[in-house]
Amino acid sequence: VTTAPQQAVTLEQILDLEPLDRDLFRGRTRPTQTLRTFGGEVASQALVAAGRTVDGERGVHSLHAYFLRPGNPKAPLIYRVDRIRDGGSFTTRRVVATQSGEAVFHLSASFQAPEAGSFHHQVPQLTAPAPDQLPPGSVVMADADPANREWFSLVSAMFPLEIRFPEELPRFAAARGEVRPPRQRIWVRAAHRLPDDPLWHACAATYASDLFLLGTSGAPHGVVIGTKDIRVASLDHAVWFHDPFRADDWLLIDMESTWAGHGRALCRSSFFRQDGVLVASVVQEGMVRRVTRA
Amino acid sequence: VTTAPQQAVTLEQILDLEPLDRDLFRGRTRPTQTLRTFGGEVASQALVAAGRTVDGERGVHSLHAYFLRPGNPKAPLIYRVDRIRDGGSFTTRRVVATQSGEAVFHLSASFQAPEAGSFHHQVPQLTAPAPDQLPPGSVVMADADPANREWFSLVSAMFPLEIRFPEELPRFAAARGEVRPPRQRIWVRAAHRLPDDPLWHACAATYASDLFLLGTSGAPHGVVIGTKDIRVASLDHAVWFHDPFRADDWLLIDMESTWAGHGRALCRSSFFRQDGVLVASVVQEGMVRRVTRA
Repeated sequence: VTTAPQQAVTLEQILDLEPLDRDLFRGRTRPTQTLRTFGGEVASQALVAAGRTVDGERGVHSLHAYFLRPGNPKAPLIYRVDRIRDGGSFTTRRVVATQSGEAVFHLSASFQAPEAGSFHHQVPQLTAPAPDQLPPGSVVMADADPANREWFSLVSAMFPLEIRFPEELPRFAAARGEVRPPRQRIWVRAAHRLPDDPLWHACAATYASDLFLLGTSGAPHGVVIGTKDIRVASLDHAVWFHDPFRADDWLLIDMESTWAGHGRALCRSSFFRQDGVLVASVVQEGMVRRVTRA
Repeated sequence: VTTAPQQAVTLEQILDLEPLDRDLFRGRTRPTQTLRTFGGEVASQALVAAGRTVDGERGVHSLHAYFLRPGNPKAPLIYRVDRIRDGGSFTTRRVVATQSGEAVFHLSASFQAPEAGSFHHQVPQLTAPAPDQLPPGSVVMADADPANREWFSLVSAMFPLEIRFPEELPRFAAARGEVRPPRQRIWVRAAHRLPDDPLWHACAATYASDLFLLGTSGAPHGVVIGTKDIRVASLDHAVWFHDPFRADDWLLIDMESTWAGHGRALCRSSFFRQDGVLVASVVQEGMVRRVTRA
């Protein structure tokens, strides 16, 4: 039995940019219930644009991005690629995403020619229940409080991802007025199969890496980030890619918020394959503000 | 008694860029024993350039940078600032550092208007011996093996920083053929007093953040990174600034390498004030290659 929610759109469709000219691309718009463009969508599309201008032999190993203005999800985004450098081992690209002539986002990414390397080490993956042994997120959510149930229903409709929970999310504790350490883990995979080219999987992971992450920072304060009381917006985003992976196979995202203050929160996450191999590391800072009412 | 090594140059001199035009600056060259520009110097000077174009009320809270080509320390670097955005709360700048007309480095940085914030949390600082209770690095080094003694003598002559060691560095274990976990900690402060403007201190921490960090990745392999057998070069660099600090007062840098493979290593560090407050977080990826000989 497949447990994928019925999506209006696949991740492959989201990532399939329309070429307008050399180094110039357009993202497709799609029906959405949000007022702002999802940051993971802009970041992953910008990485697609960068990757399309790079020799296919070279894989992306890092990206660094800033969110400059909120995007309008009802209008398409234009991605312009600047070919910064093609070096002997590394290739660097910069991408600026614009809307109505204004830059809403910019990203730099680096690609590397295949290299085996002499050393290997990684942080260990903590033990987590296997995704196949866990009920679909929608089943878990059926027992949640109305606000969290509604939230997950929105998540399921909007993001072409399957999600499973190895443990209770801190936002459920917050709904009961309890505090938790700033840590949470989810299993995630693309709801539909993706092509084999590793660039698709890096872009899909980038898409998923913007989901849930800043919410981790609310746990020690017993609040749910992204509600009408707590405004949130991504400021920057960085991803490092390590070993190969498929994003249409289960990945464990281990998220932690290491700091919050001055209306901002810093969060990081590690992506593990089911066999425990670390495949990506993410750091993101967001604006997190309590809304004061008159 | 002052234990600062005799420096030919102060950090303030390194960070004091010469304005050439609006948004255009030149770094000063200085005598150096290295063949490549020190990455921390380029990154900190680029942050100076960005900061000089921003309203002094707004403090830097993050930077993301890529090293594109090795710089030549015998020639000056030119820093051109692009005023990406001046928003209601946040200001974004981009800086490109060039030499002989070629981009060697680029950086994006974000600044924020003062904001108290509603939430605060941070990772705890692990217990470390206080710097005042530790001997100067040069005293510790007097007992080291010749290679490490020579290395630290070079470090002391080149970097206008004071360094103390709360525990043995993994590179000394490696010199004895032993392996260690990929973690190391140092106390560091500017060897001379800096002006009060917080930008100086952010830039000084950025300078120091490129020191020792990639070396952490050699520990589990019992090798010393940056010797003639193991080549190293910074690829990218990101810093998030949290609470205020002075870089001419002691900071504990807690460094960890979370991954290595494919000729690269990912390292991160946390900067703590002596009172345990987390003041900055750093992530850097480097190229780390074993040199194969004919």
